[in-house]
Amino acid sequence: MDETLELRGFSFAAVPAGVKRADADRLDFALIAADCPAAAACVTTTNLVAAAPVVITRNRIRSGLCRAVLVNSGNANAYSGEQGMNDALALTAAVAAELHTDPELVVPMSTGVIGHALPMDRMLGRIPELVKKLSPVSFTDAARAIMTTDTRPKTVVRSGELSSGPMRIIGMAKGAGMIAPNMATMLVVILTDVKVEPAYLKECLVNAAEKSFNKITIDGDTSTNDTVVVLSGPRPDSPVLGTNAEDRAAFASLLSAACMDLAIQILRDGEGATKLARIRVTGAPDSAAASRMARTIAESPLVKTAFHGADPNWGRIIAAAGRSGVVFDPAAVDLFIGDVPIVKQGTLVSDDWETAAHKVMLKGEFSIALDLKVGEAEAEILTTDLSEEYVTINADYRS
Amino acid sequence: MDETLELRGFSFAAVPAGVKRADADRLDFALIAADCPAAAACVTTTNLVAAAPVVITRNRIRSGLCRAVLVNSGNANAYSGEQGMNDALALTAAVAAELHTDPELVVPMSTGVIGHALPMDRMLGRIPELVKKLSPVSFTDAARAIMTTDTRPKTVVRSGELSSGPMRIIGMAKGAGMIAPNMATMLVVILTDVKVEPAYLKECLVNAAEKSFNKITIDGDTSTNDTVVVLSGPRPDSPVLGTNAEDRAAFASLLSAACMDLAIQILRDGEGATKLARIRVTGAPDSAAASRMARTIAESPLVKTAFHGADPNWGRIIAAAGRSGVVFDPAAVDLFIGDVPIVKQGTLVSDDWETAAHKVMLKGEFSIALDLKVGEAEAEILTTDLSEEYVTINADYRS
Repeated sequence: MDETLELRGFSFAAVPAGVKRADADRLDFALIAADCPAAAACVTTTNLVAAAPVVITRNRIRSGLCRAVLVNSGNANAYSGEQGMNDALALTAAVAAELHTDPELVVPMSTGVIGHALPMDRMLGRIPELVKKLSPVSFTDAARAIMTTDTRPKTVVRSGELSSGPMRIIGMAKGAGMIAPNMATMLVVILTDVKVEPAYLKECLVNAAEKSFNKITIDGDTSTNDTVVVLSGPRPDSPVLGTNAEDRAAFASLLSAACMDLAIQILRDGEGATKLARIRVTGAPDSAAASRMARTIAESPLVKTAFHGADPNWGRIIAAAGRSGVVFDPAAVDLFIGDVPIVKQGTLVSDDWETAAHKVMLKGEFSIALDLKVGEAEAEILTTDLSEEYVTINADYRS
Repeated sequence: MDETLELRGFSFAAVPAGVKRADADRLDFALIAADCPAAAACVTTTNLVAAAPVVITRNRIRSGLCRAVLVNSGNANAYSGEQGMNDALALTAAVAAELHTDPELVVPMSTGVIGHALPMDRMLGRIPELVKKLSPVSFTDAARAIMTTDTRPKTVVRSGELSSGPMRIIGMAKGAGMIAPNMATMLVVILTDVKVEPAYLKECLVNAAEKSFNKITIDGDTSTNDTVVVLSGPRPDSPVLGTNAEDRAAFASLLSAACMDLAIQILRDGEGATKLARIRVTGAPDSAAASRMARTIAESPLVKTAFHGADPNWGRIIAAAGRSGVVFDPAAVDLFIGDVPIVKQGTLVSDDWETAAHKVMLKGEFSIALDLKVGEAEAEILTTDLSEEYVTINADYRS
C-alpha cells in the first residue's frame, strides 16, 4: 500500500455541511482521527489577527498530544469574537463526545471568509455522521473538503527507512491565495506512522516549514488562519523513533521533503498561476538581506506580470532589487534567467539573450539568479506569475 | 491667461525622436526652458539603482540653478552603465550649446524600458529642432511627449496671491505604473513665476512631495527614475518671494496643492485603475506605524482586487492590518467604509452594512478608515484598485 493515501492508525471522513451556503452539497467538513492520542506539533500564522481555531489549536497542541483534527472550508471563523471561540469549542466538544475522548485532544481548523459566524446548527448536526463515516480509505475526501479556491486536492505520500523498519508520511494541504512567507500555507495536516516525541517533532516541523511553506509566496498576504499540524505515532504499537542519530535525521529529512512537496503543489495551484519561478539571491551580505531581496523581487507586481507574459524584462528585477533596502553595487552584479546570462558585472551581455531568455520563461518553471558579489549569504523564494485570472478570482471571490 | 498652460519666462517644445522605435512618429522628446537660469530644487528616487539622468540631475541641481529640463520617454537610460552616463551628458551638452548656456544648467530626465542604450543618433539629430521650436504655448505638447502607458497628459495650473501681487504655478507629470511611496511619481516638472531662494524652494518641495507623491501607491514598485524638478523665477524681472511669513506660507501651500493635484491625476490614470481609495489609519501608536499599516492595506493584492469588485470584504482589510507588524487589539478597533460603520469595538455591526458598503465602493472614489484606539497618530495613503487590465498592460508592456 506504499503509494496509497492510507496510513495505519489514522482514519478520515468528510461530509457536506452547507458551511458557506445552506443549499450547497459540496464536501466542506472533514475529520482526521488517530486511533489513539498521537504525538503532535503545529506551526501557525504570524498574523496578529489570529482566528479562533488558530488560538485553540496553538493552546491544545502545547500538550504534545492530539487525537483528531476537525476542518471546515467556507468560513474562516476569524475575527469572530467570543462567539467564534465558543463555536469552535462547541464543535470540537461534540467531536470529542462522539469519539469518547477529551475535548482538549481535538483541534479545529477553518478556512474561508473572515468575519462571519459559523452556521452552527448545520455543522453540529453533521458531527455524528462525520464520526460514524471515519474510514482509513477516505483521505482524499477529507483533502477535497478543505479546498476553497483550490482547483485540486493536494496530497503527498513519502516513504523512508529507519534502522527498525520502514516509515511513512502522508499529508494534505489547501491554499491557493493569501499565501505569503512567514507561515505561508493555509491549512496542512501531516501524518506519520512513527512515534516521535513532541519536542523533536516540533523542532523538525519548524525546520521543515522554514524551508518549504515559508519560502513560497503567491500574493504577499499572510492569512489569519494558516496552520500546519503534524500527528505522529497514532497507535500503541506504532514504531518509535529512537535516539539513533541517523534515524532522527532520516525522519527530519522525510518530513521536510513532504512539506516541500505540498508547498510546491500550493504554488502550482496558486490563484491564476501559470508559472513557478525560483528567485535565488546569492553573494548577499547576510541571509536576512538575501531573503528580503528575494522576497521583494518575488512579490513585485511588475516582475510577476512580466513572468506571466514570459517577458525577460530584467530591468524590473534589478529595479525591485534596488528598492529592497539591501546595499549592493549595481555595477558588480550577475543576473541569469534560467541558464541564460543576462547581466555580467553590471553590464548587459551583448549576445542575443532576449530570445533565449524568453524561451526559458515560456516553460512552466524557471529560475532567476542574482549574484550580488557582496558576501557569502544566499536565499531562495518560490513564487508564481500574476495573471488576469488572479484578479478575476479575487475581485469576485467571497469565501 | 490665468487658466492657460503658459507661464511668463518659460517655453516648451516636443518632437518625435523615435526613442523607442525608429519608425514611430509620436512625440517622445521634450524640452522645458527658462528664459534665464532659474532657482531650482529636486527630489528623486530612493531606489539604490538610480538611473543615469537621476544621478546627473541630483548633482547639477545642487547648485540651486537650472536653465532647462530635457525629457524623453521610451527609454529610461537606467542600468545603462558608463555609456548611459556619457549619453545623458552628451544630450544635455548639445542642448546647452544650442541655448548658449552652461551644460551644468541643463538636466536630463528619462522614462521607459530599463537596460537599453539610447538611440543617440536619432536623439542628437533632433536637438537643434527641439530648441528652435521652443514656444510659450507648447506646454501640452511637452506634457504629451513624456507619457508612456499614461492614457492622458497630466497638468496643473494654480494661482495665488503674494503681498506684492499674484503668483502662479504650472506643472506636468507622467506616471501610471511603478508607482509607490518614497518618491512616488515618475517624472514631474513644476514651474513658478516667483523667484524663491533654492534652500526654501527645496524645503517646500520636500514637504509637498511627502504629503502628495509619497502618499500614493499603485503597485508598490518604486522606479529607478522618479524625479520631481521645480524651477522658479525664470526672468530677471520675476517677482521675488520675500521674507514675509504669510507670503512664504502661501507659496508653500500653493506648491503642495499643485503637487497633490498631480499626484491624484497619476493615481486616477494608474495602470488599469478604475477606483481611488483613501486608506486612513487613526489611533496608531506613532505615525510610522500608522503609515506602515496604511501602506500594507493599500498594497495588499487581496484588498485591491476586492476594491475592484466593489466587494466590502472587510476581513481582508483586517487581515492586512494584522500582518503589518503594528501591535493593536483586534477587539478594540473601529472600521468604516466611506461613512458606513462595519466594525465597532472589534464587533461586526449587526445592521445591513453590506449593501450600503457595496454602494459606497461602486463609486470612483471612497475611503477606508481604521481606528486602532492605541494612540493619537494617524496616516493616510491613497491607492487604486487592482484590475485585470493592470496585468494585461504589464504582461505585454515593454517600454
